[in-house]
Amino acid sequence: MNVLVLNGPNLNRLGARDPAHYGSRTLDEIRADLEPVAERLGAVLEWVQSNHEGALIDALQAGAETVDGALLNAGALTHYGYALADAVREFPGLVVEVHLSNVHAREEWRRRSVLAAVCAGGVYGFGPDAYRVALEGLVGLLGGDDAAPGARPDA
Amino acid sequence: MNVLVLNGPNLNRLGARDPAHYGSRTLDEIRADLEPVAERLGAVLEWVQSNHEGALIDALQAGAETVDGALLNAGALTHYGYALADAVREFPGLVVEVHLSNVHAREEWRRRSVLAAVCAGGVYGFGPDAYRVALEGLVGLLGGDDAAPGARPDA
Amino acid sequence: MNVLVLNGPNLNRLGARDPAHYGSRTLDEIRADLEPVAERLGAVLEWVQSNHEGALIDALQAGAETVDGALLNAGALTHYGYALADAVREFPGLVVEVHLSNVHAREEWRRRSVLAAVCAGGVYGFGPDAYRVALEGLVGLLGGDDAAPGARPDA
Amino acid sequence: MNVLVLNGPNLNRLGARDPAHYGSRTLDEIRADLEPVAERLGAVLEWVQSNHEGALIDALQAGAETVDGALLNAGALTHYGYALADAVREFPGLVVEVHLSNVHAREEWRRRSVLAAVCAGGVYGFGPDAYRVALEGLVGLLGGDDAAPGARPDA
Amino acid sequence: MNVLVLNGPNLNRLGARDPAHYGSRTLDEIRADLEPVAERLGAVLEWVQSNHEGALIDALQAGAETVDGALLNAGALTHYGYALADAVREFPGLVVEVHLSNVHAREEWRRRSVLAAVCAGGVYGFGPDAYRVALEGLVGLLGGDDAAPGARPDA
Amino acid sequence: MNVLVLNGPNLNRLGARDPAHYGSRTLDEIRADLEPVAERLGAVLEWVQSNHEGALIDALQAGAETVDGALLNAGALTHYGYALADAVREFPGLVVEVHLSNVHAREEWRRRSVLAAVCAGGVYGFGPDAYRVALEGLVGLLGGDDAAPGARPDA
Amino acid sequence: MNVLVLNGPNLNRLGARDPAHYGSRTLDEIRADLEPVAERLGAVLEWVQSNHEGALIDALQAGAETVDGALLNAGALTHYGYALADAVREFPGLVVEVHLSNVHAREEWRRRSVLAAVCAGGVYGFGPDAYRVALEGLVGLLGGDDAAPGARPDA
Amino acid sequence: MNVLVLNGPNLNRLGARDPAHYGSRTLDEIRADLEPVAERLGAVLEWVQSNHEGALIDALQAGAETVDGALLNAGALTHYGYALADAVREFPGLVVEVHLSNVHAREEWRRRSVLAAVCAGGVYGFGPDAYRVALEGLVGLLGGDDAAPGARPDA
Amino acid sequence: MNVLVLNGPNLNRLGARDPAHYGSRTLDEIRADLEPVAERLGAVLEWVQSNHEGALIDALQAGAETVDGALLNAGALTHYGYALADAVREFPGLVVEVHLSNVHAREEWRRRSVLAAVCAGGVYGFGPDAYRVALEGLVGLLGGDDAAPGARPDA
Amino acid sequence: MNVLVLNGPNLNRLGARDPAHYGSRTLDEIRADLEPVAERLGAVLEWVQSNHEGALIDALQAGAETVDGALLNAGALTHYGYALADAVREFPGLVVEVHLSNVHAREEWRRRSVLAAVCAGGVYGFGPDAYRVALEGLVGLLGGDDAAPGARPDA
Amino acid sequence: MNVLVLNGPNLNRLGARDPAHYGSRTLDEIRADLEPVAERLGAVLEWVQSNHEGALIDALQAGAETVDGALLNAGALTHYGYALADAVREFPGLVVEVHLSNVHAREEWRRRSVLAAVCAGGVYGFGPDAYRVALEGLVGLLGGDDAAPGARPDA
Amino acid sequence: MNVLVLNGPNLNRLGARDPAHYGSRTLDEIRADLEPVAERLGAVLEWVQSNHEGALIDALQAGAETVDGALLNAGALTHYGYALADAVREFPGLVVEVHLSNVHAREEWRRRSVLAAVCAGGVYGFGPDAYRVALEGLVGLLGGDDAAPGARPDA
Repeated sequence: MNVLVLNGPNLNRLGARDPAHYGSRTLDEIRADLEPVAERLGAVLEWVQSNHEGALIDALQAGAETVDGALLNAGALTHYGYALADAVREFPGLVVEVHLSNVHAREEWRRRSVLAAVCAGGVYGFGPDAYRVALEGLVGLLGGDDAAPGARPDA
Repeated sequence: MNVLVLNGPNLNRLGARDPAHYGSRTLDEIRADLEPVAERLGAVLEWVQSNHEGALIDALQAGAETVDGALLNAGALTHYGYALADAVREFPGLVVEVHLSNVHAREEWRRRSVLAAVCAGGVYGFGPDAYRVALEGLVGLLGGDDAAPGARPDA
Repeated sequence: MNVLVLNGPNLNRLGARDPAHYGSRTLDEIRADLEPVAERLGAVLEWVQSNHEGALIDALQAGAETVDGALLNAGALTHYGYALADAVREFPGLVVEVHLSNVHAREEWRRRSVLAAVCAGGVYGFGPDAYRVALEGLVGLLGGDDAAPGARPDA
Repeated sequence: MNVLVLNGPNLNRLGARDPAHYGSRTLDEIRADLEPVAERLGAVLEWVQSNHEGALIDALQAGAETVDGALLNAGALTHYGYALADAVREFPGLVVEVHLSNVHAREEWRRRSVLAAVCAGGVYGFGPDAYRVALEGLVGLLGGDDAAPGARPDA
Repeated sequence: MNVLVLNGPNLNRLGARDPAHYGSRTLDEIRADLEPVAERLGAVLEWVQSNHEGALIDALQAGAETVDGALLNAGALTHYGYALADAVREFPGLVVEVHLSNVHAREEWRRRSVLAAVCAGGVYGFGPDAYRVALEGLVGLLGGDDAAPGARPDA
Repeated sequence: MNVLVLNGPNLNRLGARDPAHYGSRTLDEIRADLEPVAERLGAVLEWVQSNHEGALIDALQAGAETVDGALLNAGALTHYGYALADAVREFPGLVVEVHLSNVHAREEWRRRSVLAAVCAGGVYGFGPDAYRVALEGLVGLLGGDDAAPGARPDA
Repeated sequence: MNVLVLNGPNLNRLGARDPAHYGSRTLDEIRADLEPVAERLGAVLEWVQSNHEGALIDALQAGAETVDGALLNAGALTHYGYALADAVREFPGLVVEVHLSNVHAREEWRRRSVLAAVCAGGVYGFGPDAYRVALEGLVGLLGGDDAAPGARPDA
Repeated sequence: MNVLVLNGPNLNRLGARDPAHYGSRTLDEIRADLEPVAERLGAVLEWVQSNHEGALIDALQAGAETVDGALLNAGALTHYGYALADAVREFPGLVVEVHLSNVHAREEWRRRSVLAAVCAGGVYGFGPDAYRVALEGLVGLLGGDDAAPGARPDA
Repeated sequence: MNVLVLNGPNLNRLGARDPAHYGSRTLDEIRADLEPVAERLGAVLEWVQSNHEGALIDALQAGAETVDGALLNAGALTHYGYALADAVREFPGLVVEVHLSNVHAREEWRRRSVLAAVCAGGVYGFGPDAYRVALEGLVGLLGGDDAAPGARPDA
Repeated sequence: MNVLVLNGPNLNRLGARDPAHYGSRTLDEIRADLEPVAERLGAVLEWVQSNHEGALIDALQAGAETVDGALLNAGALTHYGYALADAVREFPGLVVEVHLSNVHAREEWRRRSVLAAVCAGGVYGFGPDAYRVALEGLVGLLGGDDAAPGARPDA
Repeated sequence: MNVLVLNGPNLNRLGARDPAHYGSRTLDEIRADLEPVAERLGAVLEWVQSNHEGALIDALQAGAETVDGALLNAGALTHYGYALADAVREFPGLVVEVHLSNVHAREEWRRRSVLAAVCAGGVYGFGPDAYRVALEGLVGLLGGDDAAPGARPDA
Repeated sequence: MNVLVLNGPNLNRLGARDPAHYGSRTLDEIRADLEPVAERLGAVLEWVQSNHEGALIDALQAGAETVDGALLNAGALTHYGYALADAVREFPGLVVEVHLSNVHAREEWRRRSVLAAVCAGGVYGFGPDAYRVALEGLVGLLGGDDAAPGARPDA
């Protein structure tokens, strides 16, 4: 099972940035933590980070044939990246939205996600552990036979 | 580790109800599926369902001394149960919000949660598997030492 | 034909309360007036009143197997009882919304019904006679073969 | 008892139009169905249909002296016909609003009625049977002595 | 003079809960403090607390014949308990709204009260002393001859 | 204890003005009624009335060193006097908001107070008695040791 | 000077209708009162009333070559008649908006005029005398050399 | 008949200021033009201008006993002067709102008047001639016996 | 192929009216320009203009059997003509919305079209040439086999 | 005549993506279809597609000297690409907005275009044929002498 | 060059007030700091502070003939002082808005300035240094020949 | 002191673009003007311009270790660049927002800045001189010991 892990703007600064909201682990450390989990779950991870919305769309399009699902931590693009949302909608695999912090307990504008309606599901608020939780969920969705009712609506 | 699993209005009808959104497993079947997971993670589950907001608050208050964390699937109370939200806020343990369906891909009013800001984190859209995913996350939050930055804000 | 007549908060005070809006007949008198009408229309009435939203949901769930349709006068829960609305949506029979007063000619917040979209139809503004008018309509819907196009949408 | 049955824009196309929302009976068939009901209830029906808001106002004004009450299915004018609403308000008899479909389960803009606050009451969602249900209610209002508290507010 | 003191959801947790907003006295201690004040003012207190909106309505209805006025601290129901508000409106005595914290200096949603318009008056922000201040005011309203202009509007 | 009683626009017309909302006592009569209460509570009152927002700010600033607390009935400035609100915020003593009428039961714009969030507490709806009720509360806040949690937020 | 006096829906019912808002004079009586005023001011009046928005537009277009200015009492079309507003905008003469009642002291929706921005000026609240006041103003605008700054914006 | 002509902020700069909106006549010239009109109509004018909201309220209160009516051009206070609006409401005589420019054809915020609902009527858009038009209307209201239906609502 | 060209209020004044927005050609000249285009494309045009919304609905209904598609320039009815929109929705052929000016670069209210969602497509901003552009598009839609995905939604 | 055809995010996936909304032709096929049309109309096409807003702006700036007009299908950037809108505004040639689907019949957020006000005109809803229709319009605008009144406002 | 420095409500309390937002320097100290800067730039400062909006307008009007430009720190009047804004608009010199704190990082209502649109420019967030920064800018605007495009719009 | 000068979309077109709003100097000319100012103030400037939001974020991240402060003219990204705002927030130095034009006197959407709350301060409306004014302010903030109270809130 191939899983794309897509990280948006400023996530390359994890650890350096705002530990009160995001914890002190860097993205590389999170990735290192996630690899054995992926192995246990039978998933091969492809890891992308960019500060450019266009590059995230490029990566998602590039994986359309080869990737089964994606974890998407879009950073602030979560709240206005309609073009990224369109890319998620056309992506043939399932996408799970990931947020490290509890976005609902911060600024009002962080409560609105333009991605959520086109993702299959999401997790938020578990800190660096969010990637593991989301991967557990994504693999369940990809493998189960009663998986993800309500997923991928066209809203 | 004691975990309260709190289920709100109409969740006793899971399986009978709207399989397109919630899947075909009943709440009892979900509970049966979750027990071995809890055991593996070292968690003892206490299971409550009620159609009364007051009864959910009563249960949360009753667990204040003995429970370490809670999974909360509040059903439609998610969207207007401010009294339940106040009970979550005063609850000394951590609470994780659970939704089986992708609430962001349904009616507009289901996108607003009055609970999210006072919970530590949440999951949505994984179908009956959501309870397992949430439990993985909650146990991580309760056990880790870098856990849950941003959790329990007073917003 | 079994018909549940579900009455929400404060309707046990009809007659004592605000005659300018609701008339001077008590709920018991309205019930007595309605019985011969039900008999003529071949309907057997089951009558419930509660000030608890949870109890109304319990009653609707309890009738799921045995009841063909319901008249629902939810009182002020009409305007925020999303959990009751979910219960109506999963109820297998048809539900007709009833209001004695013209809710559109009173406070602004009384104009919004969270129940209307999941009911089959509704009546308002006929005073105590509203129950009779609604029963005429419900029985028509249950018995006719061109009945209620547009009813029970999932919106 | 003289009753004006006023039908607004596009209702002359009933039957031809959108059977999913309005059923397959034509306005003439509905009228034929309603006549024996009117006779039983002691009502003489005057039937008007027009696509012109002005013509509906003309008809309502013309009936001011001779008509006891009116059924008003204003079609889409329900949602913006303020001039028609003013005409209803000055009409000396009682007016009952009629909708065949459940307007609350369709587009958002169909949920707002500029007529409701100046009518005595209303019915919606009973399909072609709505006219019968509304006539039952109107005749009740015109004949009863405890009828329609809250009707005709000036709000 | 009989006075009902009605306390809503989570107020049984006063003292244990969020001392920054509510102070450290428990509801029982507040009650003990209030008794001598009541005695001095010639008032007999009946004390109710419930986490159930329906139970608060039941209590208010039960006191309709025997109670002269009420202090109502509805907790979070203040902001969405329209059914409770209807019960207040039909209650024959005067009701005074009580809040321990300054609800206007907290979350935005705590600024809106659905009860205020149907109460005679209210106090907020005096901490546990709020009950005493409110009782002073209520007794004044019940006893004075120029009391409470503007009270109990039907708005 | 020195207490400033600050009265805003049009309050010099109390008694002459709108007795349905404000009662028939003049501001001088209210002042005369309040003096013995103040004496009993150990408070010395300084009394100011002006139709000028600037003059109210001047008075509040002038009392910064000598006054322990203030009762503030700002009249219509309550709803738009942001400059007055800034003066309240910088005032070192505690301020209690006073309204004679139930502002929540009148025009919509009277429900919003730009002062409430920077005051310690408030009372409304007790008619001319509101000053006495507020003074009871203010003196409690100034003298108690568990007084006014939540007061003076910077929000 | 030729002046068109254009009267919209329901104004043919003046006198019969809602005397609390519009007074007891009929439109014919108002017309009779206005004629000598017009004569004194050197104006020849052309008088039109219709319940049809289209007919009002037809009349305004018909007068484009021959009429110097117009008084426009559009009734409820004031609030939604955008087509009429476009006709006013292209009309070469000046148009003055007339309302008998104080539209700002009634329902909220009567406060918004879609005509006001394209008229030269307006009067409201003078009862049947409004036509005279408006004619005074219109004639002033048509005759003066410093007249109507700000009139006829394209906004 | 005594008439107060009340002019708000910046109106002392008429003529110097923004001729495109207000014309080139100064306030003194307008006053000189208005005197003979007043004389013809039997009115004695008292003329006040101030940039202070408080001073306008003072003047209105001062005229309560001696003045029959007022013309009020409140300048920008029209849009936020709630204290002035309260003063108008308690003023025993009738008040007519005056605007030289067409406030509806300018910035959006100039379309909302907090004074209009408590005035008897108003005129706008006639340039410097507005005072004459308004005085015609005010005198009509004060003298007629069918005058000003709908005036002075408490809404 | 029969094509109805439906023109709404004030379009009979094209050329005379507001050349900055609409150009200087009259509707007759536009029609003359369009005829050879129609001939080349194999379309027979039927041309209607009315200032009455009802008449436009009448015309659309009359063409239901004989017309293959329509160009609809509804003028200001575009923004509030819900009854016309309902007529478009029930019309069996395809309808293309036409605007000469760029409605998005003018008043805010011209940006909202109540017709757009029920039309197949639309063009705006090409001046008098808009009819030609729209006819090209309509004929393409009527003739192609991959035409107009997304057209005629029921939204 | 040089025409830039600018295609935004995800349009490289046309054909693969959501055929219900966009048809089954790829962007290359559309381009191939458009070439002979361009040739007939005397236009030379330059074709750009990018998922990066910045790259679209770069392309538009690069064409400032050499390009006469542009077709712009901005995909989801239509709804939030203010920087692209600024680039359109400064572009010396005319820009025509193109949408394949009827954006008004889909999600609410697709109805708002931040580009429309700075384009000369636009077309939507003709499927893959939209490019041809738009090119017809653009060439008309560029060549005619009465072309595009109202185009390129600075709004 | 004469420069008016206009300071609004509560700025006389700088230093004493809220040092977290405004720093610890008093207005007199700021003035003393600014004098040598003014001298270097060739500006003569006139310094006014008042808590009265009317007094600020009076001062601005008084300087109309003699002052070249103004620095305006209006305090909370920034957010609702429309009359002051009108005075700025008619002031013949240029006005620069000054805020010590970053008004955008505080309460939501401090983000809206009713003055900004009629000022030439503004600075915020530099603490007591803001006056120096603003004076640099104002002198640049007054002296340069390419200065301040976009200044003094009539919006 | 190292200062990054970051310029967003379309600013490379300054001089060529919209001189009414931005003046006629190019970005290179502004840079040349700014260098001697920087030298005088002891600042070394690093200059970046890009039309890509991602590239601006990249540049800000790259300067995190070496740059003391930044001037940020984000162009239209000011209004929706939440990802850029997050980058500003994590940037260790101070950032000052710069706008050449008075953004408050243009389109409504230009009044909202998503950057302002995370910048230390800002200037607008001084034309090309804005960079100099902002640099004066930034250097003051970086060097002073009472500098910038209220800067860098986390709001």
